[in-house]
Amino acid sequence: MEFPNWILQRAHVSPDRTALSCGEEKWTFRELADEALDMAGKLRTAGLEEGTRVGLLLESGPEAVFLIHGALLAGLELVMLNSRLTEAELDYQVRDSEAACVIASDRLLEKAGPEALSAGRLAASEGATLDPAAVWPEDRTMTIMYTSGTTGFPKGVRQTAGNHFSSAVASVLNMGLSDDDVWLCAMPLFHISGFSILMRSLLYGMEVRLQTKFDEEAAAREIAEGTVTRISVVSATLARLLNRLEESGLRASGNFRTMLAGGGPVPVPYIRRAQALGIPILQTYGMTETSSQTATLSAEEAVRKAGSSGKPLFLNRIRIEGAEAPGEEGEILVSGPHVTPGYVGKFSDHPAQTDGWLHTGDIGRIDEEGFLYVLDRRSDLIVSGGENVYPAEVEQALVSHPSVLEAGVTGMPDDRWGEVPAAFIVVRTEVGEEELRDFCAERLASYKVPKAIIFTDDLPRNASNKLLRRELKKRLGNRN
Amino acid sequence: MEFPNWILQRAHVSPDRTALSCGEEKWTFRELADEALDMAGKLRTAGLEEGTRVGLLLESGPEAVFLIHGALLAGLELVMLNSRLTEAELDYQVRDSEAACVIASDRLLEKAGPEALSAGRLAASEGATLDPAAVWPEDRTMTIMYTSGTTGFPKGVRQTAGNHFSSAVASVLNMGLSDDDVWLCAMPLFHISGFSILMRSLLYGMEVRLQTKFDEEAAAREIAEGTVTRISVVSATLARLLNRLEESGLRASGNFRTMLAGGGPVPVPYIRRAQALGIPILQTYGMTETSSQTATLSAEEAVRKAGSSGKPLFLNRIRIEGAEAPGEEGEILVSGPHVTPGYVGKFSDHPAQTDGWLHTGDIGRIDEEGFLYVLDRRSDLIVSGGENVYPAEVEQALVSHPSVLEAGVTGMPDDRWGEVPAAFIVVRTEVGEEELRDFCAERLASYKVPKAIIFTDDLPRNASNKLLRRELKKRLGNRN
Repeated sequence: MEFPNWILQRAHVSPDRTALSCGEEKWTFRELADEALDMAGKLRTAGLEEGTRVGLLLESGPEAVFLIHGALLAGLELVMLNSRLTEAELDYQVRDSEAACVIASDRLLEKAGPEALSAGRLAASEGATLDPAAVWPEDRTMTIMYTSGTTGFPKGVRQTAGNHFSSAVASVLNMGLSDDDVWLCAMPLFHISGFSILMRSLLYGMEVRLQTKFDEEAAAREIAEGTVTRISVVSATLARLLNRLEESGLRASGNFRTMLAGGGPVPVPYIRRAQALGIPILQTYGMTETSSQTATLSAEEAVRKAGSSGKPLFLNRIRIEGAEAPGEEGEILVSGPHVTPGYVGKFSDHPAQTDGWLHTGDIGRIDEEGFLYVLDRRSDLIVSGGENVYPAEVEQALVSHPSVLEAGVTGMPDDRWGEVPAAFIVVRTEVGEEELRDFCAERLASYKVPKAIIFTDDLPRNASNKLLRRELKKRLGNRN
Repeated sequence: MEFPNWILQRAHVSPDRTALSCGEEKWTFRELADEALDMAGKLRTAGLEEGTRVGLLLESGPEAVFLIHGALLAGLELVMLNSRLTEAELDYQVRDSEAACVIASDRLLEKAGPEALSAGRLAASEGATLDPAAVWPEDRTMTIMYTSGTTGFPKGVRQTAGNHFSSAVASVLNMGLSDDDVWLCAMPLFHISGFSILMRSLLYGMEVRLQTKFDEEAAAREIAEGTVTRISVVSATLARLLNRLEESGLRASGNFRTMLAGGGPVPVPYIRRAQALGIPILQTYGMTETSSQTATLSAEEAVRKAGSSGKPLFLNRIRIEGAEAPGEEGEILVSGPHVTPGYVGKFSDHPAQTDGWLHTGDIGRIDEEGFLYVLDRRSDLIVSGGENVYPAEVEQALVSHPSVLEAGVTGMPDDRWGEVPAAFIVVRTEVGEEELRDFCAERLASYKVPKAIIFTDDLPRNASNKLLRRELKKRLGNRN
């Protein structure tokens, strides 16, 4: 299967519809395609040939969208870099992905290193006229996004045109689509949660209402006025949005259709508050390897099936490894055209699928009605304000400090971020909490730095000496 | 790409939604899957193994839907037989497709020949329990539908799972989808126009409101009451529906969303009447080889672009062979995942695509805004009440009469059917009009039998002796 070039086809099919708006500015699909074509020519003139991998370190905004679409038109593979990473973390991803260069927003240029291209300077340069490919093959790698794994080494996940297409189509078959749909995007574009909104916009012919950073006051107002009809949130932004709506005495317009909530089950009290405000919440389960949602719980089932992530989307299948009857626990396996074909760099030899199934590393069960419950995120994943924090990666940073003998990291509840990392430390020589935090901050994005450091004599381990992170969570509970 | 089994997946994902209703009866997707599973077991017990080709000659109704879905679950290839064909025409299609057997509704059993299986007897038989395939490959042949060609020999068009899927997805990306959508199906299920509604139902999780035959009174009432939101029509049914709505003083409910009009441009007066009744008409261009729509004109452009079939759907591309500038005429070529991979039987060696493009045989042009105008249907196709009539096929029947020397067939305007065939005849020996009509009726479905027979001394031919059917149309005009 191959697709007509999504950007040109959308501009051809519905040129005058609004594609993008941000603040007071807006662009039609024709205008967006023109901006992207212009940018594609500049990328080519800058020496970036079709198939080249390029790192993008961008602040969210219309210019980022032009650059992303331009790079897609130029046939590049986009390594989407998280702007919250440290220089060392970025450097690892750029080297691992063998990106030919990094293009960075001017405010992030320093972080991107001395060889990075300035996005501003690129936009101001002279570009050639480029004749973009008329068709995109299904297996074209469009994006590479890094996700940490159990080893502590981030893995570069390939996302193809077929992955993004299948994800968007499965979503529309679940949620529907109307001519007047507008999706509020306050999620980072370097995450699949934000990037997938850009893809849906192209495929659906739908307006993206872009916030450069999450602004709950504006979001609440737009939901109440019906100027947006869809929104994606994580628990931290959900809480802020509900608070703001309640404080302002606002409720959702009848035009507002769905709120897609990622990053773990939403507590029932939040669901009831959302319902009281007229907001249908769809809870989802997904990951970078599935190019966004793989299962979604419908708003009608949100209370009856509280804690569940719902059912697979139409194009996907989900099963529990080894489960012979409903309700049995095991690793969650996912199959479908939205699943990545594999990784780049260090993990390019590690198959992403076994017999067509992605082994997520997450533990779950499926009840007799087919609803998925995620019991334990892979590697005891900590989701903090929508960002994934992998304990193994934080532990590795900690044990590289000369005074640290052993480290064990787990998630700690936090009112603002949902969860934050907490570290248990066995020391070799005496060291202060602040020194360890500073040490981590040099190596890890700030959201990964432990917010609590607990010194202890030993870490809980099983017979084969494997760290029991669930026991850490219990110890944490006992302390509070 | 492969799909989860559409029937089982839909029953899994939304078991309690209404899948099908007919009169007072209705079935959920769970119930429909159960009926289909039951039927699949009976088909297997009747000796029909996976991959077997089977002819279906069915009256429209819930039982036909159960049998179609059951045959899909049993992994059969469905040769969808037009119930208006003569025994000789049916026999040709059954032999050409090498169908292992024909299953016929009881009222059509005689026509289907002595070896046909009775659908009623099959439904009443005992069946085994069948464990259907969990996945359907993209290239699985689901259906075979016959379409006549320039030679007069009908060609069996293969339609794969990928074709039906792409068609339904491209349509939803154009028309949108709501939870409360209900599609009124009064089109024959053996045509792609009706069959594609069943596929959309499975993929969208949408109710099909089935009419066993077109009932304009009921259709008008449902459109006015908003109990249906979508409908497919051809010009003949459109005219009857508009008349009925106007006579009853009804107008479309605000819930009613789109009327999909196939079989050639809708005259502007009809569009204005529909608009006055609150009905948005989407005119489409499509064919059996493209598994339904390939281009669609939006309701907003219906008057400004009168006569156009609109723009390609998102997954498709359309171009005019040889055209170097907008507006130039030529053969219409179509590319996309909805295009058949090829034919069966006699035409299995004839490639359906050349370098990925289907040569439709239709002549058209594309204006500077990208709107397609179909100027001349392939082989001077006559569309009569939604059925395609190929002049070559009718001419071939006529010249097989011993008294007929030459025959030329063209379309003649008709208030009820849009067009009907008219034949010009050069005789060898004297013969009556009635005798020729009876002779045709034995060989051709009734809608193909010429409604007017005009005796003449010669037929208009060009230098290379090719019949000029357009000249026949002029002669017809001069007579009136």
